[in-house]
Amino acid sequence: MDNNRQKILADEFLALHHAPSILFLPNAWDAASAKIFEIEGFKAIGTTSAGIAASMGYADGQHMSLSENISVAHRIIQNTCLPVSIDLEAGYADSVRGIAESARKALNAGAVGINIEDSRHGSLLDKTMQQEKIKAIRELATAAGVHLFINARTDSYMILDDPAECLRLSIERGNAYKEAGADGIFVPDVGLLDRKAIAILAKEINAPLNILAGTTTPPISELQNLGIARVSVGPRPMRALLSFLRKMSQEWLSDGTYKLMSESTISYSEVNGWFTR
Amino acid sequence: MDNNRQKILADEFLALHHAPSILFLPNAWDAASAKIFEIEGFKAIGTTSAGIAASMGYADGQHMSLSENISVAHRIIQNTCLPVSIDLEAGYADSVRGIAESARKALNAGAVGINIEDSRHGSLLDKTMQQEKIKAIRELATAAGVHLFINARTDSYMILDDPAECLRLSIERGNAYKEAGADGIFVPDVGLLDRKAIAILAKEINAPLNILAGTTTPPISELQNLGIARVSVGPRPMRALLSFLRKMSQEWLSDGTYKLMSESTISYSEVNGWFTR
Repeated sequence: MDNNRQKILADEFLALHHAPSILFLPNAWDAASAKIFEIEGFKAIGTTSAGIAASMGYADGQHMSLSENISVAHRIIQNTCLPVSIDLEAGYADSVRGIAESARKALNAGAVGINIEDSRHGSLLDKTMQQEKIKAIRELATAAGVHLFINARTDSYMILDDPAECLRLSIERGNAYKEAGADGIFVPDVGLLDRKAIAILAKEINAPLNILAGTTTPPISELQNLGIARVSVGPRPMRALLSFLRKMSQEWLSDGTYKLMSESTISYSEVNGWFTR
Repeated sequence: MDNNRQKILADEFLALHHAPSILFLPNAWDAASAKIFEIEGFKAIGTTSAGIAASMGYADGQHMSLSENISVAHRIIQNTCLPVSIDLEAGYADSVRGIAESARKALNAGAVGINIEDSRHGSLLDKTMQQEKIKAIRELATAAGVHLFINARTDSYMILDDPAECLRLSIERGNAYKEAGADGIFVPDVGLLDRKAIAILAKEINAPLNILAGTTTPPISELQNLGIARVSVGPRPMRALLSFLRKMSQEWLSDGTYKLMSESTISYSEVNGWFTR
């Protein structure tokens, strides 16, 4: 990507986190899903590493390679005019230097943001080391002249059971990552976060806060009132689509009809039109 | 893939076209869609080049490269125990030799069947030349010791307007391709094929007949009674999923809720379980 264009997109993406309106950042796993999000009017796109992995035949958690992950993100970036943030999982390396190199590859692919998480194999990683990684990424992005939005994800709610401890650790780590150079903090959960905890996180973490929407998450307008800056959806839409494909399959096999497949489907020519150069 | 395993799958796949029951062959565009089809109980899987292209950010019609197409098919093959047939479009080459080389690559990726079509840029290709391509593919597959199922697609119904002429040409070309070594004939259409025409095609073409299911297609049991050997769906399920993603996006943007995303979604652990080795 042209360096100037990337700088502009990066500044736009940063500004979206400080705008009066909450940022809804849908997560794409291929060029077609990204195109839907662009057409429907979202202002930026994130990738979902779990979705990309499933599409490629891997379990989540860095079983795919960094280059496989980035190759898909690159296809997405090439096919949208929106800012794109790449889900880099835990950075695809153990050392600070290795992780910074991964971020450089994301930057080279045209990303204007990354997600970087602080757990591996169900355990939280060392907080100080995580700060070092964030510092190193910030340095290389600054040297490249692009304000790469570092969305530092902290995984207490994904790993621990005690809500009070999750809350305490998320605030402590969130602020530590912000201090190290993160632009935003991402606190994903699997249904543990209630309105009260969301409000406390938003108040106590000194950076734009990103949460993951799910079954029990309050509606977007309410999240905005609670002080959330960004909402994303991870691999959930991709899995909902797979669920729909399952229903379609069951109709073919049980009734022998094609109703679900035929109802209000995007046309062949529309899809081709998206990608005709 | 182990050559012995590929031979066995190829023989199984061929037999499915001569079984008492019609073969429903759903078309996958990535490893996850293929996994759904496997789990739901289909006996074999085809790929959809249009779906793979859209997922990668290309318009349909050989805008993606052969290696991109085959790389996705290979991921599908690596992640399923079912026979897989690769949609090779028009063969990604102009010469007979070039097209045979494309088929060799499909075979090397583990395919036990291919689709090869007889049109480019909205025009039917020369019939005799198409027969030469089929002969060359048959020869190389025989030399490799695998009965590669050659599904020869004939595109009159996709290109011409006069139903009588479409019918005549489909029969003429279908039988010519069968004579050249094709195992089955694929007559896709965009809604022109009625019950009467389907019955005539099934009777007059001397090979297992494949049609494409769509809005106006009779149910599967009826197709079986009409003499159809194989039904596929092309990129239609993939487009139906994109349509569902569009609806999901519209709900996020208009109501600010996540109902469509949350209703009966396949779980994170189920998807990971598919790909854990």
